Amino acid sequence: MRTARELAQHLGAKLTGDGGLQVSGVAGAASAMAEDLIYVEAERYAGEAETSAASCVVVKEGIRVPGKTNLEVKDAKLAFAKAAAILLSKETKEPGIHSSAIVSAKARVAKSASIGPFAVVEEGAEIGDGSTVGAYCFIGKGARIGQQCRLHPRVTVYAGVSIGNGTEIHAGSVLGAPGFGYVYGEGVYWKFPQVGKLEIGEDVEIGANTTVDRGSLGTTRIGRGVKVDNLVQIAHNVEIGEHSVIASQTGISGSSRLGSRVVVGGQVGIADHCEIEDGAILGAQAGIPTGKKIRRGQIVWGTPARPLVKFKEQYGWFGRLPELAERVKELEKRSSGE
Amino acid sequence: MRTARELAQHLGAKLTGDGGLQVSGVAGAASAMAEDLIYVEAERYAGEAETSAASCVVVKEGIRVPGKTNLEVKDAKLAFAKAAAILLSKETKEPGIHSSAIVSAKARVAKSASIGPFAVVEEGAEIGDGSTVGAYCFIGKGARIGQQCRLHPRVTVYAGVSIGNGTEIHAGSVLGAPGFGYVYGEGVYWKFPQVGKLEIGEDVEIGANTTVDRGSLGTTRIGRGVKVDNLVQIAHNVEIGEHSVIASQTGISGSSRLGSRVVVGGQVGIADHCEIEDGAILGAQAGIPTGKKIRRGQIVWGTPARPLVKFKEQYGWFGRLPELAERVKELEKRSSGE
Amino acid sequence: MRTARELAQHLGAKLTGDGGLQVSGVAGAASAMAEDLIYVEAERYAGEAETSAASCVVVKEGIRVPGKTNLEVKDAKLAFAKAAAILLSKETKEPGIHSSAIVSAKARVAKSASIGPFAVVEEGAEIGDGSTVGAYCFIGKGARIGQQCRLHPRVTVYAGVSIGNGTEIHAGSVLGAPGFGYVYGEGVYWKFPQVGKLEIGEDVEIGANTTVDRGSLGTTRIGRGVKVDNLVQIAHNVEIGEHSVIASQTGISGSSRLGSRVVVGGQVGIADHCEIEDGAILGAQAGIPTGKKIRRGQIVWGTPARPLVKFKEQYGWFGRLPELAERVKELEKRSSGE
Repeated sequence: MRTARELAQHLGAKLTGDGGLQVSGVAGAASAMAEDLIYVEAERYAGEAETSAASCVVVKEGIRVPGKTNLEVKDAKLAFAKAAAILLSKETKEPGIHSSAIVSAKARVAKSASIGPFAVVEEGAEIGDGSTVGAYCFIGKGARIGQQCRLHPRVTVYAGVSIGNGTEIHAGSVLGAPGFGYVYGEGVYWKFPQVGKLEIGEDVEIGANTTVDRGSLGTTRIGRGVKVDNLVQIAHNVEIGEHSVIASQTGISGSSRLGSRVVVGGQVGIADHCEIEDGAILGAQAGIPTGKKIRRGQIVWGTPARPLVKFKEQYGWFGRLPELAERVKELEKRSSGE
Repeated sequence: MRTARELAQHLGAKLTGDGGLQVSGVAGAASAMAEDLIYVEAERYAGEAETSAASCVVVKEGIRVPGKTNLEVKDAKLAFAKAAAILLSKETKEPGIHSSAIVSAKARVAKSASIGPFAVVEEGAEIGDGSTVGAYCFIGKGARIGQQCRLHPRVTVYAGVSIGNGTEIHAGSVLGAPGFGYVYGEGVYWKFPQVGKLEIGEDVEIGANTTVDRGSLGTTRIGRGVKVDNLVQIAHNVEIGEHSVIASQTGISGSSRLGSRVVVGGQVGIADHCEIEDGAILGAQAGIPTGKKIRRGQIVWGTPARPLVKFKEQYGWFGRLPELAERVKELEKRSSGE
Repeated sequence: MRTARELAQHLGAKLTGDGGLQVSGVAGAASAMAEDLIYVEAERYAGEAETSAASCVVVKEGIRVPGKTNLEVKDAKLAFAKAAAILLSKETKEPGIHSSAIVSAKARVAKSASIGPFAVVEEGAEIGDGSTVGAYCFIGKGARIGQQCRLHPRVTVYAGVSIGNGTEIHAGSVLGAPGFGYVYGEGVYWKFPQVGKLEIGEDVEIGANTTVDRGSLGTTRIGRGVKVDNLVQIAHNVEIGEHSVIASQTGISGSSRLGSRVVVGGQVGIADHCEIEDGAILGAQAGIPTGKKIRRGQIVWGTPARPLVKFKEQYGWFGRLPELAERVKELEKRSSGE
């Protein structure tokens, strides 16, 4: 719960209207209640906001919603997200260990942490201050969950995995499973040892049913601020730099390295030992072949991936192939007719 | 358990043979036992049926399996599925709450519902008549499970999600997790609030380890009769119309809308804000770019997707590109020779 | 714990140095401790090995790391994996049933098996000698887990599934769920019965959050020694021959058959009723259309997949399409100029 004035200060917004107004949540204009904050980032949404039950609205510079308390900012969507971050402080679970949870006497659980029903915390594991470990979460031996983390129900954390402060993991994710590495010999596949580590940084978010494997001999690393969507596969020894984002169903194969602020679309496949430099953008469903380097800031698409502009031009001609073939045929006719 | 005569009436089939025969299950001809129903949809399968241990067989019009009770119908496979629907009435779990389950005193669980071992049902949640909630299912605050639903083990239902009557959810699915939405500002990604709803209709089926996110501010909606395979990703604010089917590993990005009776193949990627109209068919691995509209009944393939017939023609020429290039080279030779 | 001499005998290696040296684990050169085994498969890694804390190193013929006990073999990586197989004998869980587990009185659990916290083992299920069933594993009615199996936490095994000796299943996998089969009639989809079996062979490994459906009327079969990565989908009635490997996020549709020693890259889509013969290799993201046969040993890529060499040549020309179109235009100019 904040006042409009407090929000204005927090956002550096210009306040017009009742600064004492109470704001307790966020919503879309149509479903908002009086205490919800809404936002208007373009003039065409102002009408809907005006008829909303909400009393307080974040607006983009130059927009004014009559009859409401207006918080005027440069980037209304960003300000709305920042306001949400303080209004929707993560649901405060009651601290303490649920009576049904099984927590090893040799685990260290902060007093202010919350351990949900049927959670298992093995020996040597640590759960930091203010962290929530949901129902059915499995925290293996020696795993380390930082402070203010939130693990939704059914997260599996294998032994020895470390997770930084403020990180949120959605239901069903599996962190630190042994990776997929084999050596073929004498007619069968021998498991290459998968005894490395997995280190997940601070303020990371990992989606539902995503899998992140531990290193084989080395370490799988996910940097600070990285955001990973649902059903993503991150293999052994992968490294992902700070503030990169990875959309759903993408797969990153063993030992590939992504720089910081890389953007990866959905269903992208990155083969092993690739290097994706800082700020590169990989379009949805793109395929990056083994060992390939994508340069800093480059935008690529297709399988195997090519620079976006070239891919689009080539794909345009792909669409005109029947016509091009027709023109060649015509030329052949003329040529033989002469 | 039904008699052959009861099945004939139910299916509108022409009965030949012993109408009093007991039928208790369904099977393939090779593994069937005497009381199993089998089916023959083409003459070439009649021999196998004749040697089957099964006593009763659904046959396509014009086919007759000697020595068996025959149920003759227009569409044998459909009739077989309809017979299975009544023969294999969903395994009736004993009603009641397993002693190990944790059910809030403020949840409403129908007397005839079955709550499995280690299930968690939070406050305000509702479980309707005749529904089965499997082992380890997590039903968050205020979630609403209709009547005659079946949740297999390990389904996670986040707070406030609603599921219609007769819907079946397979193991490991995650319903209503916060979606993947951020606003980039000041060098980091700010979570766009994901506080909307998820409404799943009646007679829906959702496969194993599938993820369906809740709306950001609005509502994610899955219409009546929709069938979703395993490992599918459905993002925030997506709407899927009635009786659409979505095959495995497909991903549907934020705010895309599918009409009714849409058919989506496996591993299809639908980017955000697309509109797939009624009855459209998207071939396996197709990619639909952001904001794209696929018209009613259209069949498309490829990435970016194109009408199937055109894509096939273009891909045919793609295969003949080396030859086409050779022909151009030949023309150039001739042309410069003049 | 083994001596260097014991390892040398096991690997058929030529020992140089202290044969009595104790070796207890495996590691990479940089993070190894004194008792860890490391390996050097190329001269350029010898320097790193020399400065490692490890005392014992497996080396490729012709390489010698000074100051260490050397085990010289033909294939250092293979020998290292084989050594790991005996050094890292699967973490021995204490035998017995955890007090929180719910095991039916009608299940048969070997004395030497370990059943973890909150596991559920239903009636008629069998757990063989030396097998580990992790926390939250659900073993349905009549399911059969062989000897020396390892099920990591949260594996769901539906009723009747059978798993061979020595098989390892990672967290979150769902084995034996009803498949995705429907018959369309009277405006709705009728579930085609999914009452078949799932048989998983010996020495199989199945990754995290992977789904393998039971047969519809027949049996889904995964052969001996098959390795399946994370987030893979294997549909009803699929058969996979011995020692095939399937990388992450691949999907195999209903009734497709893979031979033995097939290699499938990541994110491959195999439609229904395909036949992939022994030793075929499917490149990452390839798409195999319905009913397609890939011949023994063939290497294919693309969607729809083509022989790798042809695909690469065609894709090369795809990249030169704008240039080819320019050349056609030039020819047309010349031709009309005459």
